[in-house]
Amino acid sequence: DEMRLFAKEMVEREVERHAADGLGIVDYALWSGGARVVKHSEPFTAGGKAGFFGTKGRGSVHSNAQKVLEPSFGEPGQCFALQGSSGFVEIKLRSGIVVQAVTLEHVAKSVAYDRSSAPKDCQVIGWYDGPDDDASMRAQRIMHLVDFTYDLDKPNAQTFTVDTSNTDQQLVNMVRLSCSSNHGSSTLTCLYRFRVHGFEPGSPSAITLQT
Amino acid sequence: DEMRLFAKEMVEREVERHAADGLGIVDYALWSGGARVVKHSEPFTAGGKAGFFGTKGRGSVHSNAQKVLEPSFGEPGQCFALQGSSGFVEIKLRSGIVVQAVTLEHVAKSVAYDRSSAPKDCQVIGWYDGPDDDASMRAQRIMHLVDFTYDLDKPNAQTFTVDTSNTDQQLVNMVRLSCSSNHGSSTLTCLYRFRVHGFEPGSPSAITLQT
Amino acid sequence: DEMRLFAKEMVEREVERHAADGLGIVDYALWSGGARVVKHSEPFTAGGKAGFFGTKGRGSVHSNAQKVLEPSFGEPGQCFALQGSSGFVEIKLRSGIVVQAVTLEHVAKSVAYDRSSAPKDCQVIGWYDGPDDDASMRAQRIMHLVDFTYDLDKPNAQTFTVDTSNTDQQLVNMVRLSCSSNHGSSTLTCLYRFRVHGFEPGSPSAITLQT
Ligand SMILES: [K+]
Ligand SMILES: [K+]
Ligand SMILES: [K+]
Repeated sequence: DEMRLFAKEMVEREVERHAADGLGIVDYALWSGGARVVKHSEPFTAGGKAGFFGTKGRGSVHSNAQKVLEPSFGEPGQCFALQGSSGFVEIKLRSGIVVQAVTLEHVAKSVAYDRSSAPKDCQVIGWYDGPDDDASMRAQRIMHLVDFTYDLDKPNAQTFTVDTSNTDQQLVNMVRLSCSSNHGSSTLTCLYRFRVHGFEPGSPSAITLQT
Repeated sequence: DEMRLFAKEMVEREVERHAADGLGIVDYALWSGGARVVKHSEPFTAGGKAGFFGTKGRGSVHSNAQKVLEPSFGEPGQCFALQGSSGFVEIKLRSGIVVQAVTLEHVAKSVAYDRSSAPKDCQVIGWYDGPDDDASMRAQRIMHLVDFTYDLDKPNAQTFTVDTSNTDQQLVNMVRLSCSSNHGSSTLTCLYRFRVHGFEPGSPSAITLQT
Repeated sequence: DEMRLFAKEMVEREVERHAADGLGIVDYALWSGGARVVKHSEPFTAGGKAGFFGTKGRGSVHSNAQKVLEPSFGEPGQCFALQGSSGFVEIKLRSGIVVQAVTLEHVAKSVAYDRSSAPKDCQVIGWYDGPDDDASMRAQRIMHLVDFTYDLDKPNAQTFTVDTSNTDQQLVNMVRLSCSSNHGSSTLTCLYRFRVHGFEPGSPSAITLQT
């Protein structure tokens, strides 16, 4: 009977966690929470349209970019494809937070057509972007958050902890995920989902924005 | 071995229930089943657009209103936000039914930024709206279905049973969910998902409409 | 302790399988993977619009047709409804594969309004469509893949194995699902999800297309 109770509680807990956006951890990079991709490296465009984005400025964000900030049913194709074996996305978080961890998720092995486009060696940096900041102010504030390697042999959602003693508990409302290599494709690197975890110091504005 | 069989069957049952629109209970207020929000209190609109809907008549339904009738991945933001600490939605069900229960679902605690916008004290009324009915006929038919309090300490989908001895098994094709309070926000009240459960007496028209 | 470990691993495996597009099996008929419905029998259109598609040629594919190739939350209505008690869809797969199995999924019993529109006796054929093929070349290459009966008493996603000794390991990039009967509705037959499983012989083009 004790065993049955243990099994029942574990099943309910795991299903509940899955039902809560997959992981059951607050994500400040979530599109429906107000986060946005504001910049990225050149997107992969099948059919000869590569380079289409090269002539556009900072405002040109590909329509697929928001897939990086959205949940899916775990099926292949629900990703943002960047050209070549490396690339980056810059994300404006829903609010300023102290970053404690990030999660990178690729399509699961069981349903993937090919996983050579999965990111491998990545770095995450962050900073606080104020309304009146110029470029030199931004540069001063950039913090290194975490380096990680995405491992194809582990579960497909992989969480990496930030050493918060280094970041000195500083607020960040912008993060940049840069991947310098992938798992073999020379053509494209696919980003399925990137999440940013942490906490926001209580503030009236944070409460006003919540939905 | 008996224990393994028990565990296996329980897991499969729970995952199957989750895969069936989360609860595994028929929902007559489901958007993809044909139900629609037809009226609601003033929506919350960030950025100074509050009041935008005030000048419009019955036909003006906010584009976010259908989120109340749709499933999601459990992430924050997949809701319809009403202005202030109270509000209502009126829903035309997919067909006339005898209402046996309703379910109100808010975002799960584990992924929420803030839950002060969750509804608290709510009431559900229902009536049957015929094609040629005028206002006085409608008023006569209004039935009180259930009063409930949404509890932040319980699982996020909470089902409340209608005392069907009171409603005398009458058919209803319209319901109104009114929440007179929320869990603390003075700014907005968020409705994530509302479901209406019951049964439809067998009829040729019900069968024709099914998909 | 051994029992706890067994239970824990089983739960994690089942939730992971569910999170991987429901089944955890590669699907070459997936819309987000590049597959498309290219042809179908007359769609069911409520409200007197039946026949709307009758006058259009091969290029006229109903906007709901892609639902057959997409996952959902398991709620009713996320289907493509065909007129009458029989019907077909033709699907261009994301790439040429050797077909090993197919899966037909209807809405789960627990949340369905009515299941008389579920397909019953079905047949799947396949062929390879080259860019310069004419009709007679296509006809020569048509392979019978599998006959099956969808059973309302079994779990709602039902997988049927192809006898690959018959198909001689031939490549297929087109499949046609034809259902000659349903479970009782004379009005409509609903297709919720159809998947095609198999393997693609390694090729540079297959790798180029992957996302
Ligand atoms: K995604
Ligand atoms: K919702
Ligand atoms: K579907």
